[in-house]
Amino acid sequence: MDVDRLWINARLATLAEGSPGLGIVEHGAIACKDGRIVYAGPMADLPASLEAAERIDCGGRWITPGLVDCHTHLVFGGDRAQEFEMRLAGASYEEIARAGGGIVSTVKATRAASEDKLVASALPRLDHLMAEGVTTIEIKSGYGLDTEPELRCLRAARRLGEVRPVTVTTTFLGAHALPPEANGDKAAYIAKVVDEMLPAVAAEGLADAADAFCEGIAFSPEETARVFEAAKARGLPVKLHADQLSNLHGAALAARFGALSADHLEHTDEEGAAAMAAAGTVAVLLPGAFYFIRETQKPPVAAFRAAGTRIALATDCNPGTSPLTSLLLTMNMGATLFRLTVEECIAGVTREAARALGRLDCVGTLEAGKWCDLAIWDIERPAELVYRIGFNPLHARVWRGK
Amino acid sequence: MDVDRLWINARLATLAEGSPGLGIVEHGAIACKDGRIVYAGPMADLPASLEAAERIDCGGRWITPGLVDCHTHLVFGGDRAQEFEMRLAGASYEEIARAGGGIVSTVKATRAASEDKLVASALPRLDHLMAEGVTTIEIKSGYGLDTEPELRCLRAARRLGEVRPVTVTTTFLGAHALPPEANGDKAAYIAKVVDEMLPAVAAEGLADAADAFCEGIAFSPEETARVFEAAKARGLPVKLHADQLSNLHGAALAARFGALSADHLEHTDEEGAAAMAAAGTVAVLLPGAFYFIRETQKPPVAAFRAAGTRIALATDCNPGTSPLTSLLLTMNMGATLFRLTVEECIAGVTREAARALGRLDCVGTLEAGKWCDLAIWDIERPAELVYRIGFNPLHARVWRGK
Ligand SMILES: [Zn+2]
Ligand SMILES: [Zn+2]
Repeated sequence: MDVDRLWINARLATLAEGSPGLGIVEHGAIACKDGRIVYAGPMADLPASLEAAERIDCGGRWITPGLVDCHTHLVFGGDRAQEFEMRLAGASYEEIARAGGGIVSTVKATRAASEDKLVASALPRLDHLMAEGVTTIEIKSGYGLDTEPELRCLRAARRLGEVRPVTVTTTFLGAHALPPEANGDKAAYIAKVVDEMLPAVAAEGLADAADAFCEGIAFSPEETARVFEAAKARGLPVKLHADQLSNLHGAALAARFGALSADHLEHTDEEGAAAMAAAGTVAVLLPGAFYFIRETQKPPVAAFRAAGTRIALATDCNPGTSPLTSLLLTMNMGATLFRLTVEECIAGVTREAARALGRLDCVGTLEAGKWCDLAIWDIERPAELVYRIGFNPLHARVWRGK
Repeated sequence: MDVDRLWINARLATLAEGSPGLGIVEHGAIACKDGRIVYAGPMADLPASLEAAERIDCGGRWITPGLVDCHTHLVFGGDRAQEFEMRLAGASYEEIARAGGGIVSTVKATRAASEDKLVASALPRLDHLMAEGVTTIEIKSGYGLDTEPELRCLRAARRLGEVRPVTVTTTFLGAHALPPEANGDKAAYIAKVVDEMLPAVAAEGLADAADAFCEGIAFSPEETARVFEAAKARGLPVKLHADQLSNLHGAALAARFGALSADHLEHTDEEGAAAMAAAGTVAVLLPGAFYFIRETQKPPVAAFRAAGTRIALATDCNPGTSPLTSLLLTMNMGATLFRLTVEECIAGVTREAARALGRLDCVGTLEAGKWCDLAIWDIERPAELVYRIGFNPLHARVWRGK
């Protein structure tokens, strides 16, 4: 067999399904052909006939699957640093709103930004994530809140995947918040999302999934269900911002629609956890937002474990509640704040994050047939990826074999 | 006037004492000669006669003083990732101790490491801090806990300042913990610290200050006072790990000895805060340790403000309770967890951190006469340095003019 590249003398955390723990191979090798893994396993079992155009000696370094950030709002205009500063200085929410702060400020700046500008402002954030080994990233719309700017944000997200060696999946989040011009009429705005925005997004093939924010301050379960029905009618899988600030039974709602994931979940109950497990809906936990808004209610990790709900972790990178661009730090927060184990954290940014995107067939583990997306680490044990805070031990990053 | 380098078209946060807020100069310039700042102020007031060998156009970027990490335990052997993993997996403290975990494991690994190895293992941590603009760092001993390994750690710390363009200040922390061979005899160990270790450290000129850990699980106020008296007798300024887990009135004790700083301070009371203000003792807050050990008692920031106690921030980089190598993240934690303002956070890693090291005469602000240590940032406003999480907007770092 001829292959393009062969990595040898590596320790592998394959995360292969069915393997115990991290799927560790102590003396491992990975072979790649045409961008895909053709072998990942013990050096000793490498096919004798294998001829590699290039051999890379990893010197005992660890290889994990390339990291997957499965929940981000990476594309937006402006930033909210001034609002953060005002709040720390004691300003009230009213004062911040009067000064033009809050999500409305991001919507305004996003609408005012060209597609080029949206790409340019997202690139440093993307580069930071990629520098820590991210090879697949989900990017949501949701700061345009009107047809044209929502399409523009999704186009910008797609372009990020063209200008950088990274796989971008896009999610349409028109039902993120009510835009100011809606004057409180949620029914009319949801009708626009369903009847105008979603068809336009689908017509251009701009979204891989649809999402909504189901919460007292956002949309009701009934409004969310309308969005989900319309998305499913167009063949789009769904995801949900669920049970972050209160328990509206968003987790169960997501499960009822066979959602890929329900995300946040601080207020989800045992029934919700069980429904997600039964539906195969992944629990995407977002400790960066929990940390930044100083939430105290933790997601029900014990209930997820008991029910067998899969757990992923993501940055939730966004300007208002999680200006976070480190998936390594996200793992540390998952462990420190939510008491996830090292295995849960690492699986949560690889295999389970891929599952939460419906991409487990092509990324998320080191197995033959998948894209050859690798993160190669200068560490002595995988736990270091979770334990250290504000340190990046990435040695090399490989996307589709390069 | 001839100068070596001139930075123009910059926005300056000078942090100069007496200036309001961050000491901002919107259209600023900095001139450097022989490694020192000879001018920092408005472009418009640059001396007309100034001739620069090199001019650097900053294109409107922000310049702050080079960052100062004023409390680290950067030099140690081994790591504690495995212990972290075990604890998350539910292991008890006894199980971890039986598996060789806890501070004893770091002491053992540190004693077993050569000076070269201590330098090599600390370098990636130092490089990470420097990559975020750190130009001065304090490094403590305290994992040797015997004369020879304590000297070795301090020599390693000094060498770090020779192999990298960074100013290292060293602190002797023999009274960090009781070594296992002391068999619980604190009095005998403190006698050794005072009669053997401190004189040896002073004889080699290896320490710029002395420190102790005053806590129920470490040393009493009386034992701490013995160390302080011996240090002061040798002309060494003192610092203290104070009131972290309980209120032993360590802050007031530190103030009584005119300490440069008292650090941690979660349990300090108003009297302690006032005593520190009166003595000029800086409150060094360590939010990384607060976060990592999931402390809930916050340091009395309101009392510090009311009393006029100066506040600094530091990483406390150490393997057991704060494996943190990002001073930017430390600022975000200071704001998010302790509700420090943006100005307090930025002053806390520049001017006040320099004060906590007794080095305000030569670093910590952008003022003529000080070392030309600069951090040049790709940001639109200083608040971004505090607001963002896991992002490094450093454009360039200058140490002593280069
Ligand atoms: Zn989100
Ligand atoms: Zn310390």
